[in-house]
Amino acid sequence: METHVFLQVLLIILLTARIFAELATRLKSPSVIGELVAGVVLGPSLLGWIEPFEAIKLLAEIGIVLLLFKVGLETDLVQLAQTGWKSIIVAIGGVLLPLVLGALLSFKVFGLSLLVSLFIGGTLTATSIGITVRVLTDLKVQHRPEGQIVLGAAVLDDIFGVVLLALLYEFAIGGGVSLINSGKVLLFIGVFFVLAPVAAKIISVVFQRLARTTEVPGLIPTMMVSLVLFFSWLAKMIGAPEMLGGFAAGLALSRRFFIPLGVALHADPRFARRIEVQMRPIVNLFTPIFFVMVGLSLNLREIDWSSFHIWGLSLALFVAAGVGKFAGALVIRESWSSRFVIGVAMIPRGEVGLIFAELGRESRVLDNETYAALIIVIVLTTLLPPLVMKWFYNSRFGERLTFEHQVQEEKP
Amino acid sequence: METHVFLQVLLIILLTARIFAELATRLKSPSVIGELVAGVVLGPSLLGWIEPFEAIKLLAEIGIVLLLFKVGLETDLVQLAQTGWKSIIVAIGGVLLPLVLGALLSFKVFGLSLLVSLFIGGTLTATSIGITVRVLTDLKVQHRPEGQIVLGAAVLDDIFGVVLLALLYEFAIGGGVSLINSGKVLLFIGVFFVLAPVAAKIISVVFQRLARTTEVPGLIPTMMVSLVLFFSWLAKMIGAPEMLGGFAAGLALSRRFFIPLGVALHADPRFARRIEVQMRPIVNLFTPIFFVMVGLSLNLREIDWSSFHIWGLSLALFVAAGVGKFAGALVIRESWSSRFVIGVAMIPRGEVGLIFAELGRESRVLDNETYAALIIVIVLTTLLPPLVMKWFYNSRFGERLTFEHQVQEEKP
Repeated sequence: METHVFLQVLLIILLTARIFAELATRLKSPSVIGELVAGVVLGPSLLGWIEPFEAIKLLAEIGIVLLLFKVGLETDLVQLAQTGWKSIIVAIGGVLLPLVLGALLSFKVFGLSLLVSLFIGGTLTATSIGITVRVLTDLKVQHRPEGQIVLGAAVLDDIFGVVLLALLYEFAIGGGVSLINSGKVLLFIGVFFVLAPVAAKIISVVFQRLARTTEVPGLIPTMMVSLVLFFSWLAKMIGAPEMLGGFAAGLALSRRFFIPLGVALHADPRFARRIEVQMRPIVNLFTPIFFVMVGLSLNLREIDWSSFHIWGLSLALFVAAGVGKFAGALVIRESWSSRFVIGVAMIPRGEVGLIFAELGRESRVLDNETYAALIIVIVLTTLLPPLVMKWFYNSRFGERLTFEHQVQEEKP
Repeated sequence: METHVFLQVLLIILLTARIFAELATRLKSPSVIGELVAGVVLGPSLLGWIEPFEAIKLLAEIGIVLLLFKVGLETDLVQLAQTGWKSIIVAIGGVLLPLVLGALLSFKVFGLSLLVSLFIGGTLTATSIGITVRVLTDLKVQHRPEGQIVLGAAVLDDIFGVVLLALLYEFAIGGGVSLINSGKVLLFIGVFFVLAPVAAKIISVVFQRLARTTEVPGLIPTMMVSLVLFFSWLAKMIGAPEMLGGFAAGLALSRRFFIPLGVALHADPRFARRIEVQMRPIVNLFTPIFFVMVGLSLNLREIDWSSFHIWGLSLALFVAAGVGKFAGALVIRESWSSRFVIGVAMIPRGEVGLIFAELGRESRVLDNETYAALIIVIVLTTLLPPLVMKWFYNSRFGERLTFEHQVQEEKP
């Protein structure tokens, strides 16, 4: 591969991703949808300009690992403790039901294999924190009780989702579902998640000492990326996907996690802030490459659009994805309108769902049509809830809720 | 190539580069030397752990393009105007003499071909602004007249050097020296360097408008990298190496260039500052990969160390590199001590020299031994001047110069 061809492809990917992401947000949709569409347009589905070749795939891989690092960084464990049981109930319902419903439908109704069915179920579990936060913020309800419950549940769903991903990945590599293997992986993940943050913390304190004396520029970017890569290597060693390591490294360095533990380890909040500021441009540079790659991997031309399989599966999974997330919200004690809001806000799947689907395709668990059906479901779950929420708040409960909100804020 | 192997190699490169760079600065040497040594240690010369495979080479390529973007960003044209003729004389002497001396020695004494000889001469031309600034700053003379002259000359040398690089690259691709081709390339470069900054400026103003309204994170990193890649593509189109485009993009966005022109185009100094802040982590992440690659490309085992060729050539080129830079300084009207300081401060070659040498090796103009000899010369020119300067200031003129300096500062 010639250097200039590579640089050219990279240019086209970055630029197209940006253009479609801008268009998406102007149409009030999440930018990740725009990046996905950019991939579909550039790829074999439409223009056929770019094939996903190795170097770009590897950059996309760095993109996912860094994205999960960012998801980990944004995971707010304090948040979870504050909203407590309600979040936990919503989260457990929101993971178990889509997983079980999605897998059962695929296995029984559509006659897919157990591994494929479990992968499909897994893809439906994780709520996208990023998109949910955006929806809640747009509606200015992120500080209301239902907003807090949703955020707590989304954090927990991400953790469940990533662990589930590790398990299913092990099955995919092994070629089948095995209880002994999953026990082993779970044990490893447990140990990993207990030790990794402590290790990351100690390493980051060492970095901090170094940061005071070094004369070589770029300590934070090179060392943080090294830390993320090191954890990815560790994750791979225990049989989990690399991105789990990115998530663990991010979790360990997240401010809410970092600062309390940081006090004991003489860590500096300003250092945590510097990490955030310097890592953000790098994460933002690499992540669009991943989502464009997902679009490139999707060949819409190869799909038999007249078959029942793809439409039936998409519809069934969309219902499973929606109902599954709703059920947890219906169980908790809140007003009906709050339950409705919580249920809808939990639906967007976004990036974590896409990562699941792409991993399934890469490891050849998912065939082209199942992959396409999943992408359709993820796109629908990402696009529809913001619209439903806006309609709900503006037209029906808008004024009453705003009023309640103001009354609440006036309390001491 | 497996993803986890790639991530692992990247981890080893980043970590080793950092360790050796830290060691180098603690031994009072430039960090780039440490990164080069890291490559030698990891590569076939010593441990043989890493072979320079494609994906890493492409990352290194992004590294050089971004590095030249940074060199362009740091190029201070106002500086040049202030120091005026003295800088220009030092610069012209410092480009022409090493080029001619280096090429003549290689051609006549060592019997190398014309193209190889010109490439060697070219490698000896560019003074490393980064290392020179560091040396001047360490000695606290960067604001003294001789410091200013050196900086102005180094800026000009970089521009000459990069243009020369483009010419020699064209010869290397064409397989020989051609006057018509070089005229064409020079014309293109002229047009390119006049139009590129204007184009970059207009584009950056558009970005700035976009920055005010966008909701998609990462505008600056994705668009700036796109801009750099776009200019690299343009450079390639006119038959120059990609990195020339990086340099032109950096020059166009450099603050001293950006702000005056920015006033006319309603550009915001804070925006220029944001570009710098957000691009720095990305540049710092990628550049070590390039210097490690240079070390990896060097197989010290394959070289016949007992031959006269390598030692004789290294020594002769080192003398040419030193004498050539000195001569310009001797012509200008300054005190002898200032002339000496200017001459020595112009000697470090560092990154631009390494870029030249690596391009020569890649395009197969330079064989293994000549490449090794050039690396030795570059390392020597980079390591020795800081030591000589320190000895000169501290032991001989130290107190008097410090005194003069204080007197100067006390003037209104």
